[in-house]
Amino acid sequence: MSEVGEEERTARAALTRIAEPGDEAVGRWLRQTTPVHLVQALRGERDMPPGVSKEKVKSLRLRAARTDANRSATDLATVAALGGRFICPGDDEWPQQLNDLGDGTPVGLWVRGSANLRMWALRSVAVVGARACTEYGAHLAATLGAGLADRGWTVVSGAAYGVDGAAHRGALAAEGASVAVLASGVDYAYPRGHTELIRRLAEQGLVVAELPPGDHPTRSRFILRNRVIAALTRGTVVVEAELRSGSLVTARRATELGRFTMGMPGPVTSGLSAGVHQLLRGEAIVVTDAAEVIELVGSIGDLAPTRRGPVVARDLLDPVASRVLEAIPARGGADSRWLARDSGTAEEVAQGKLLELQSLGFVQRCGAVWELARGSTAAAGSRRGGT
Amino acid sequence: MSEVGEEERTARAALTRIAEPGDEAVGRWLRQTTPVHLVQALRGERDMPPGVSKEKVKSLRLRAARTDANRSATDLATVAALGGRFICPGDDEWPQQLNDLGDGTPVGLWVRGSANLRMWALRSVAVVGARACTEYGAHLAATLGAGLADRGWTVVSGAAYGVDGAAHRGALAAEGASVAVLASGVDYAYPRGHTELIRRLAEQGLVVAELPPGDHPTRSRFILRNRVIAALTRGTVVVEAELRSGSLVTARRATELGRFTMGMPGPVTSGLSAGVHQLLRGEAIVVTDAAEVIELVGSIGDLAPTRRGPVVARDLLDPVASRVLEAIPARGGADSRWLARDSGTAEEVAQGKLLELQSLGFVQRCGAVWELARGSTAAAGSRRGGT
Repeated sequence: MSEVGEEERTARAALTRIAEPGDEAVGRWLRQTTPVHLVQALRGERDMPPGVSKEKVKSLRLRAARTDANRSATDLATVAALGGRFICPGDDEWPQQLNDLGDGTPVGLWVRGSANLRMWALRSVAVVGARACTEYGAHLAATLGAGLADRGWTVVSGAAYGVDGAAHRGALAAEGASVAVLASGVDYAYPRGHTELIRRLAEQGLVVAELPPGDHPTRSRFILRNRVIAALTRGTVVVEAELRSGSLVTARRATELGRFTMGMPGPVTSGLSAGVHQLLRGEAIVVTDAAEVIELVGSIGDLAPTRRGPVVARDLLDPVASRVLEAIPARGGADSRWLARDSGTAEEVAQGKLLELQSLGFVQRCGAVWELARGSTAAAGSRRGGT
Repeated sequence: MSEVGEEERTARAALTRIAEPGDEAVGRWLRQTTPVHLVQALRGERDMPPGVSKEKVKSLRLRAARTDANRSATDLATVAALGGRFICPGDDEWPQQLNDLGDGTPVGLWVRGSANLRMWALRSVAVVGARACTEYGAHLAATLGAGLADRGWTVVSGAAYGVDGAAHRGALAAEGASVAVLASGVDYAYPRGHTELIRRLAEQGLVVAELPPGDHPTRSRFILRNRVIAALTRGTVVVEAELRSGSLVTARRATELGRFTMGMPGPVTSGLSAGVHQLLRGEAIVVTDAAEVIELVGSIGDLAPTRRGPVVARDLLDPVASRVLEAIPARGGADSRWLARDSGTAEEVAQGKLLELQSLGFVQRCGAVWELARGSTAAAGSRRGGT
């Protein structure tokens, strides 16, 4: 599954504890040297690569000195115990589009949940907005989250109160794919009131973080987190945002990264729509529902995903996804419970894989029943040949 | 004041009774022949110019035959008795931008009110939208109308219920300039419930129509009227509109004519904002208040009109406007009542001229007091020289 060695993974995990997310000095160094060498240098066991201010080196070395050399191993074990993992650039699960962040590319991502982040992120949209949103904003976010999920798209957000939470809940309620990108460790539920939501996301969806287990969010970490949301997705929709809201930062970042930036308008008399309208007077595009979002971010055929062929070859699927796909009867389909039993996996895992397979164009959902997609190689000629 | 002869004016007035507004056959003929010849031809006194179908000629000749030869003289007298006039291409008061309508350019316009249509239209914005608007839409339209008027811009609309009426009222309440373009004769109040509003517009603003006195509106005349609103103004703002609303036709017409097309967003859950949002997903630009509208349609300096010099030379002003301008004291200014008395004119007339002079950059308003504009030639060096 992975080309990243144990030693590199451990070094990258250590870097998530030593440096703040998106530290561009670290990014520049990693173009010159390996993560293992960099960690050794920061621990004073080697010379530092050149080209970074002494101040910067000093502060990172201080943090490295305070970090136990075995801490990474403990962190990796902690996350593994939660059913999670630490993925790195070079891993099969690494979403390539994150590399658009250049020297600010995460050194790795801590992930909880059984789905494959890269597969889910292939067709994903960020839904962001105000924490203190109105009923109107919460309604829009939930409806949009559900509408995107219904159409096989992954909803990415930040698990905050307000718009974020409503978008995640909308996607979960539609039994769709949702990814929370946290500004803390994946085991640190923030805000506290969303502990249960984040637990459900880790079970039914994915919870992702740049910060190592146990680490807490800070103001700057929220802002840095936003760049991951923007980079991971094909586009960002802002639902409600005041002028100078953090959501506007995410949206502008999306534009800089060449992603689509969208806004859902609201009453011009509402201060919570003022930021959205400001964005819409600039680079963002007006959207009023999930279909319009997908029309924009999706390539041709995404509005009717079942008509496309799969986007990756069948033999590149991981073994569990393969087993779930093979369990689907050629005629009539089956529900996730049946498919989980037949493929010898837990129902949650099977559900995650089914959503992946849907994103990849292999399967389609019809109510509770999953069937082979019309255009998929598995189906062609056998199941639908006669119709 | 005018280069258009009596005979031509009478012929053009006759054409407004014989042909429907914007009849492109008439427009084509008028490129080949004079209005006088065309009317004679339609009355069978001459050969018709070539190039138009026999059916078309027949139907126009039928209408010409049913129109008394002296009817134009009566129409001109009727409108004159209302303090109005009939203006034609070539008149000083003719708004040149209407000629952008090509063969659909009005053959002339019936006008009630004391202001100069061309001057007022120099800095004008159309505000259009649903007849059955919501409280939200009415509030926006009234606020926008007042905001535009406050900044010396003319509000053009169609005097209908809902958004139109609210926009006119907003402008009138701010003692600003407002123009109603009717789909009937200027003496035919439609809708009936707006009789009083239209009377006030004729007194404080302008009422304009392509149709001759007494003529009633029809469905097609409403649609044809919209092109005049679009062509007369620098831009059109749609406040609330359902999908397939007539206001969207006006907006699209504005775009075709190279004018600015703008929309004020609303809740995406409101059907009355759906048409606006559709427009905003296309060519229209999001605006949320009068300042944003002016920022878009105004040239540099329009947000601070008092800093510009006048746009026409002082000796091109009409005698009444000149007298009003001369009546303004070099220091401190005066109210419209005082200026009316001092310039020997009625207060309504003085008010209209003051709004014209404001549009032209000669004067500025400070509450009830009108003063010379800082950048105007009249003021330079004398009044503000020492500050």
